[in-house]
Amino acid sequence: MANQKKAKESLVMMSELVLPNDTNMLHNLMGGRLLHWMDIAAGISAQRHCNHIAVTASVDNVSFRNPVKLGDVITIQAKVTRSFNTSMEVRLTVYAENIPSGSKVKSNEAFYTFVALDQDGNKTQVPELIAETEEEKQLFESALQRRELRLVLAGKMSPKEASSIKSIFS
Amino acid sequence: MANQKKAKESLVMMSELVLPNDTNMLHNLMGGRLLHWMDIAAGISAQRHCNHIAVTASVDNVSFRNPVKLGDVITIQAKVTRSFNTSMEVRLTVYAENIPSGSKVKSNEAFYTFVALDQDGNKTQVPELIAETEEEKQLFESALQRRELRLVLAGKMSPKEASSIKSIFS
Amino acid sequence: MANQKKAKESLVMMSELVLPNDTNMLHNLMGGRLLHWMDIAAGISAQRHCNHIAVTASVDNVSFRNPVKLGDVITIQAKVTRSFNTSMEVRLTVYAENIPSGSKVKSNEAFYTFVALDQDGNKTQVPELIAETEEEKQLFESALQRRELRLVLAGKMSPKEASSIKSIFS
Amino acid sequence: MANQKKAKESLVMMSELVLPNDTNMLHNLMGGRLLHWMDIAAGISAQRHCNHIAVTASVDNVSFRNPVKLGDVITIQAKVTRSFNTSMEVRLTVYAENIPSGSKVKSNEAFYTFVALDQDGNKTQVPELIAETEEEKQLFESALQRRELRLVLAGKMSPKEASSIKSIFS
Amino acid sequence: MANQKKAKESLVMMSELVLPNDTNMLHNLMGGRLLHWMDIAAGISAQRHCNHIAVTASVDNVSFRNPVKLGDVITIQAKVTRSFNTSMEVRLTVYAENIPSGSKVKSNEAFYTFVALDQDGNKTQVPELIAETEEEKQLFESALQRRELRLVLAGKMSPKEASSIKSIFS
Amino acid sequence: MANQKKAKESLVMMSELVLPNDTNMLHNLMGGRLLHWMDIAAGISAQRHCNHIAVTASVDNVSFRNPVKLGDVITIQAKVTRSFNTSMEVRLTVYAENIPSGSKVKSNEAFYTFVALDQDGNKTQVPELIAETEEEKQLFESALQRRELRLVLAGKMSPKEASSIKSIFS
Repeated sequence: MANQKKAKESLVMMSELVLPNDTNMLHNLMGGRLLHWMDIAAGISAQRHCNHIAVTASVDNVSFRNPVKLGDVITIQAKVTRSFNTSMEVRLTVYAENIPSGSKVKSNEAFYTFVALDQDGNKTQVPELIAETEEEKQLFESALQRRELRLVLAGKMSPKEASSIKSIFS
Repeated sequence: MANQKKAKESLVMMSELVLPNDTNMLHNLMGGRLLHWMDIAAGISAQRHCNHIAVTASVDNVSFRNPVKLGDVITIQAKVTRSFNTSMEVRLTVYAENIPSGSKVKSNEAFYTFVALDQDGNKTQVPELIAETEEEKQLFESALQRRELRLVLAGKMSPKEASSIKSIFS
Repeated sequence: MANQKKAKESLVMMSELVLPNDTNMLHNLMGGRLLHWMDIAAGISAQRHCNHIAVTASVDNVSFRNPVKLGDVITIQAKVTRSFNTSMEVRLTVYAENIPSGSKVKSNEAFYTFVALDQDGNKTQVPELIAETEEEKQLFESALQRRELRLVLAGKMSPKEASSIKSIFS
Repeated sequence: MANQKKAKESLVMMSELVLPNDTNMLHNLMGGRLLHWMDIAAGISAQRHCNHIAVTASVDNVSFRNPVKLGDVITIQAKVTRSFNTSMEVRLTVYAENIPSGSKVKSNEAFYTFVALDQDGNKTQVPELIAETEEEKQLFESALQRRELRLVLAGKMSPKEASSIKSIFS
Repeated sequence: MANQKKAKESLVMMSELVLPNDTNMLHNLMGGRLLHWMDIAAGISAQRHCNHIAVTASVDNVSFRNPVKLGDVITIQAKVTRSFNTSMEVRLTVYAENIPSGSKVKSNEAFYTFVALDQDGNKTQVPELIAETEEEKQLFESALQRRELRLVLAGKMSPKEASSIKSIFS
Repeated sequence: MANQKKAKESLVMMSELVLPNDTNMLHNLMGGRLLHWMDIAAGISAQRHCNHIAVTASVDNVSFRNPVKLGDVITIQAKVTRSFNTSMEVRLTVYAENIPSGSKVKSNEAFYTFVALDQDGNKTQVPELIAETEEEKQLFESALQRRELRLVLAGKMSPKEASSIKSIFS
């Protein structure tokens, strides 16, 4: 396995058509269905980076703003932003497209993290990520701060120790 | 519609059997599938509280610790913790049960928020929540802080204004 | 494995949202879909009692009275009523809830039976059931009569021998 | 709408392949999945007879004898046996076929009843059934007795009045 | 395994009800869903002929003429037309039935080919097909020409060598 | 609606993970499932070109060469090649990727055609396609010949009139 891989090698594009069973009584896409699709897209991206099975370790706060309607097309872009020993952070950007009206809006942004596992289910090392574009470099940098927040929210780090977040709030 | 409803009136219990299509190559439940089930349970709970259609507004950070296996039984408990004008916070507790071994572990905890909509899709007022037990009262209190964090993470509140969170980090 | 288990240890609560693909042209829940959900709930209940894989042996007569609509919430309660060497009878009570109107009606009652199997697929002994409440005791008693009827209907017992049923009809 | 229709006009044949999500941990077809397929086949048969939407009114006792395996082919035959004003009884015969071994066994027999509804959801008259073959005539005759048993089991007829069943048990 | 089998032994009848998730925004059955059902029916037919696992090798040009509506019943007939060493051609005839109006139209005709595989996934010999009826004999004869066209379209045969097709176009 | 649109505006990328229910007894992706995914990807592409609902009119001959395995990632690229008054031809290229081994192979190529419909289900005019790259220009040119073959195979054009195909075979 390569020691380093470029961010762009992990890019996944996934388009899905919103079908009746994906919607609620107002014919809007249900949030949980979108979280499910995002998890699959992010998982493929993480697996492309590490060439191993990758399982979801966490999903960061996701908010749902604009309703997505029955018949709309969801397009999910997923790309690894940074790797940490045996885990990877994946950034997702979700667009909703209403084809007859020609409108296309960014519907969500999210970060999922994945852990790489070998065939026996044990954690395994993943390649370092090479950020190339300006946006990739910014996401690479800010990944540390998101990671601290994740550890605090999961109760694995004391808020006092979360130095990069502390500076934001004070 | 009643002006006030008790927390316990919104309690939802949902058991699901982990079937092949819910699992990855290691026969573990995929995270996105669980997020989808949690969204449905939380949505039913929110709807019971407000007696309207309720749509997902956000999901807070969720982490996945222990692998859940094919054939395990997932039991999700959902209950509204607090309402805010037209929205509600729902707390989810997820248990995974391996029946032949008789083991049952808490697999996840999460908070989803929902917005109440009328038949035309407009936001509508929800009843106040009455917290009765000690746990319900604590969750009712801490809901404000989680709400501030959500607003900060969604870019709708400046970290400087998030007074309840600031105190934690400093 | 314990020799005896209480009825309440096998209690399963399962809530499901009626989605478009579960309904017919009149937007009513299809009977077969409900029978499928009931089988899963009953199977989890039977497995909790016996701590083994449990497979459906039979379903008793089920009637469908009130139409359940798209968007309604189905809540299934399943609990073992009695065990017989390697099999268990499970009682199901199904409620349908229309949330905007706040109505909740008992939609069905049914009995499923399950057989406990070991890892090789052979029948295996199950614990005796301890009935505690008045209702559990009545269901425990009447289970024998339902069992006789099942055996007669499956052609495994002659109607003449079905003493407990005979007394009802004459 | 015709006043009379032949039994054979309602014949439905449905073949289904047993896929992973239809099976339990022993790779056997789950009973509830089969009940679901049977309901769809029986519903099509009833609709062919009455040329209206038909909804499940009841399913009689069904027992599951031989395990059906992943990859097996299920073939369901459904045919109306008799009509009663606004309802119809449908008989199902289920075969399970293991193709590599060339074996084919009758796996189940069952009776479902359906009610015919018009576009507004009101009960509507169905054609009389013309039984032609010897088997169709026997099923037509015995339908009365099964109907009495169904009414008794649903609590809509007193066992004392169920004259055709009484004679069997005494 | 028998060296020869009759065409009629491979006959498969499959009825499916068009449900919401099978349809597009105009409530018409989506072409891909029908292609999926046809593949399953054809696969069962091929497996009945060869008594082995059979995997799809190709589907010939299929055209979709009349829209099939939500609630319609699709009936697929599949039968092997000819076998070629390790492969089989299956002919599909698809009918769409609108039950309230009593109309039934032939909606599609298609040819799928399948390859027989043993348990290790290697190609394996299939029985010769015995065509009995006039129609079976014609399909048996014309199978050679369809096979040539398939080979040309897949780039495995030069158009110049496709003698049976050449004669049609000139 | 624009009178002309570029080919690249209709590009759709769709990645799907092969899950248990998509596979046969050898854990290979079933052909019908792939045809279904291809239809959805092609339909989105056609709709992007015409900004109307687009329904499948035909699928050309598709052959399945290499088995795709459970856990593999399918990536489908769809792009309109040419429009004809009210219809469009879409070309699909399908890749199968085995992530642990890092292999990625072209698994299929296919052409689907779609018809544009307005809200009442009537055929409606589509924009002309502008081919820009060398490959797009070749596909634009050869579309006429594929169209003739399609008409001949659907019995809508006599082989004698199919001038562009005739020249190939003679």
